[in-house]
Amino acid sequence: MKFTLAIGALLASSATAFAPNAALTRAVASSSSSSALESFKSNIFEVKDVAFADTHEQIVKGGRDLFPLLPKAFEGIKEVGVIGWGSQAPAQAQNLRDSLNEAGCDVKVRIGLREGSSSFAEAREVGFTEDADTLGEMFDVIKKSDLVMLLISDAAQAALYKEIFAAMKPGATLGLSHGFLLGYLDSIGEKFPENMDVIAVCPKGMGPSVRRLYEQGKEVNGAGINASFAVHQDRSGKATELALGWGVALGSPFMFETTLSSEYRSDIYGERGILLGAVHGIVESLYRRYQRQGMSPEKAFVESCESITGNIVKIISTKGIKAVYDVLEGDDKEVFRQAYSASYLPAKEILQEIYDEVSSGNEIRTVIMHGKRISKFPVGKIDGTDTWIVGEKVRSERDEDSIPLNPFTAGVYVATMMAQIDVLLEAGHPYSEVVNESVIEAVDSLCPYMHYRGIAFMVDNCSFTAKTGSRKWAPRFDYILDQLAYTAVDNGKPVNMDLISAFENHKVHLAVEECCKLRPTVDISVGSASTTKEIVIQ
Amino acid sequence: MKFTLAIGALLASSATAFAPNAALTRAVASSSSSSALESFKSNIFEVKDVAFADTHEQIVKGGRDLFPLLPKAFEGIKEVGVIGWGSQAPAQAQNLRDSLNEAGCDVKVRIGLREGSSSFAEAREVGFTEDADTLGEMFDVIKKSDLVMLLISDAAQAALYKEIFAAMKPGATLGLSHGFLLGYLDSIGEKFPENMDVIAVCPKGMGPSVRRLYEQGKEVNGAGINASFAVHQDRSGKATELALGWGVALGSPFMFETTLSSEYRSDIYGERGILLGAVHGIVESLYRRYQRQGMSPEKAFVESCESITGNIVKIISTKGIKAVYDVLEGDDKEVFRQAYSASYLPAKEILQEIYDEVSSGNEIRTVIMHGKRISKFPVGKIDGTDTWIVGEKVRSERDEDSIPLNPFTAGVYVATMMAQIDVLLEAGHPYSEVVNESVIEAVDSLCPYMHYRGIAFMVDNCSFTAKTGSRKWAPRFDYILDQLAYTAVDNGKPVNMDLISAFENHKVHLAVEECCKLRPTVDISVGSASTTKEIVIQ
Repeated sequence: MKFTLAIGALLASSATAFAPNAALTRAVASSSSSSALESFKSNIFEVKDVAFADTHEQIVKGGRDLFPLLPKAFEGIKEVGVIGWGSQAPAQAQNLRDSLNEAGCDVKVRIGLREGSSSFAEAREVGFTEDADTLGEMFDVIKKSDLVMLLISDAAQAALYKEIFAAMKPGATLGLSHGFLLGYLDSIGEKFPENMDVIAVCPKGMGPSVRRLYEQGKEVNGAGINASFAVHQDRSGKATELALGWGVALGSPFMFETTLSSEYRSDIYGERGILLGAVHGIVESLYRRYQRQGMSPEKAFVESCESITGNIVKIISTKGIKAVYDVLEGDDKEVFRQAYSASYLPAKEILQEIYDEVSSGNEIRTVIMHGKRISKFPVGKIDGTDTWIVGEKVRSERDEDSIPLNPFTAGVYVATMMAQIDVLLEAGHPYSEVVNESVIEAVDSLCPYMHYRGIAFMVDNCSFTAKTGSRKWAPRFDYILDQLAYTAVDNGKPVNMDLISAFENHKVHLAVEECCKLRPTVDISVGSASTTKEIVIQ
Repeated sequence: MKFTLAIGALLASSATAFAPNAALTRAVASSSSSSALESFKSNIFEVKDVAFADTHEQIVKGGRDLFPLLPKAFEGIKEVGVIGWGSQAPAQAQNLRDSLNEAGCDVKVRIGLREGSSSFAEAREVGFTEDADTLGEMFDVIKKSDLVMLLISDAAQAALYKEIFAAMKPGATLGLSHGFLLGYLDSIGEKFPENMDVIAVCPKGMGPSVRRLYEQGKEVNGAGINASFAVHQDRSGKATELALGWGVALGSPFMFETTLSSEYRSDIYGERGILLGAVHGIVESLYRRYQRQGMSPEKAFVESCESITGNIVKIISTKGIKAVYDVLEGDDKEVFRQAYSASYLPAKEILQEIYDEVSSGNEIRTVIMHGKRISKFPVGKIDGTDTWIVGEKVRSERDEDSIPLNPFTAGVYVATMMAQIDVLLEAGHPYSEVVNESVIEAVDSLCPYMHYRGIAFMVDNCSFTAKTGSRKWAPRFDYILDQLAYTAVDNGKPVNMDLISAFENHKVHLAVEECCKLRPTVDISVGSASTTKEIVIQ
């Protein structure tokens, strides 16, 4: 029943599969008819028109070769304040500092933290210090900054936005890495002050990946985490150039345009879906199922969790989603079809619910209300249950090369990923955003960390918005799969071949291929001798 | 570890424990200082002041001896339209018709249904017919009625309220059995038309129980399901009398006042909590836990689900909540304390989240959005999983007298019930509402049905608002208990004796005792030869 594929072979084949320097040969059109966004223009960076499946989008490719353009993009910016020290801030501050440095740019990057924050020590460790005037109290830093990169938690943004806006210099630019603050302001009927530029650059991966791949980028030009960018207010007329410069300085292989609204919907949705919540729920439900079928706990963990984080996502990262199905043979293909056919609609039901909750503002209100309860109900650790105790044992004895590609697990996981993609496409999100939020962030950023330390650990250590959202939705995926999908398989419900055919012929496969061409194949493993560092993502 | 208690003994002892005719000896005060409600007055029914723990509330006791007062309470009402045929409508329509009949009241009770509804046949079966002009198309019925009892589903109310208001006779009264419509109107910034009385009578039990206990009431005066009532608009000055008359005609042992707003908050919250969602999640989590500890699936089901629905709730119904702890001895008491201590706060975390979601309007928006998705995602059956297949087997082989009182199960269940009570009390709900929504409805109405057919079947067959809410929240209770409570027990976390002491000395125990005095001890079993009928609650 199991089809085992050596990871080494996959990685070897990947370099040719999606060569990083493959020429973009598709026709360039001046505007995209299928995108709701206006085409953006840059006088500094080359804007490329890329065909994603049957649509066109404007993108800017990144790379270290573009660093010489940074001084022009940062024109008028003398001081950048990076506010916070959570997941994104340490990575973005260091990447930005290093890139601007390398570009010979006379811009000071300074960290701003809450008075008495324990993060002062961590910032000093990577070279931001009071002595060099690159570290200080957050409001002092905000007052001095021409660009305020507001990377504090969503809850802190909601609590402090008034003081922050009031503290900013006239004409300074507010920079975000997430649309949450807009979602929050919308939900309470407020707006950004009119006298400032508001931009966002949103890396499609967690902070540690943004830093790690940036460092790989020193050897492999263009390695990094893709970013979306949004220009929400452009009083100066320079907002687009600054946003693109910020993305290039972070090391993003390519940047695509979005809106703050589209960004927060897809982002908050995605982390509740396949990125965190869904993968957690899938694994818990399969781990139980396989034990009911007679497997030992360890074997059940290998066939569920390990198969996803150690095999399936590596195939997707290097060869695309459909390759998971294509490499299966004989009976395994049928098992995949059964699992896919039974899981797609139940998974989509929960995903559509998540999307509606996020779009309606409900989910943001939920996060804010949750934040108000944490003094009474601190967020507890989920990494202590049987599943993850067994997981730790399995990881300690892991033989990376013998991790199986379980076709049932693959069917469930891939069906959920496809359902997530379809919900976003039906809501009108551009392919670049869809692919990054549903595929690339999962297989290149989050799952490698989950493979290293476990899904529950990952959930315990991500942002408040993500960790509470994941806790909320993971059990929903678990229950619905158990109640509707696995019962359908066990009761011999026939495979819905229309669903399989829709999967095989889905246009997203072309878009994924296109996205993969836009960044080099990178080593997504973590925890090796050279990169091992405790993941602490707050 | 297990303490087995024969149900027969419990039922036998219950009659003396809370004798139905115990005199209400507490001091009567003219108003309650702790209630946000104005005292209500009636010129027809006797309003009693009852001490619930340290507060006072005004109530009206029901009973068949009050039927002669119905003609006066229904003064001016010639035609009552009962709209819908879900859970409440069949029970309320029959009870009302039978009671008014017995009282010699010249009021016609007519059923109004959607054109072509399959429920016409069911209504005819219990004596409502087109020939007798007691059955018709809903808008025709609405147009003729002096009292419109709107018992259609929440989603239908949200969809049709405009047409319904427009169709009503000038001066007619709108009657509800749930505050949902107010919650919905609030969420979209609308109001009830000003030219009508709006009242609600809300039985604290599902329809089949309302009918079944009414029938028992023919032998035992006062047997029935308690009801809250609310007078939301009183243009005629007669709204309170009509609401009380309606409650008496339903067979409610006692009626207590609430507001539509307080009602929908506590009702929607309660069914997501211990009534449906929490008890489902508790059972799923314990069923897994006991199997991990080495029990067979059948044994694990008995020690989790059967113990709750077949033993624990019977103790609570007859002797109160604390009795569950009091009857345990030796090691079992310590096991209860461990489970209670570890479960109370995690359960309360989810319950507080539910309460906040309901109060903020989020949960009502969720229900409405869910309703809009059902053509694409019909609500699937949850009664086919391993847990409930094993449950069916266990039920078929059941020896009622040997169902154990598992002290761990009891600790988890009772902690969750107490947490539900505390959240409501902290939000300012009156004791009568708290006790009915958190204790009596669970142990006297829902759990007996769950014992008869299983929790999943019950969830599959309740109202849309309840069934979707239960699906949403059950897995949250399951996960948080597994992640936080059971890990704490397994890791030897010491019992928090403050929590145990708060439980033992909780004022709710007096309030439960008081509520029990207000209704006779009834036989809560279902499924016996005389009452067996397929439960179909829509």
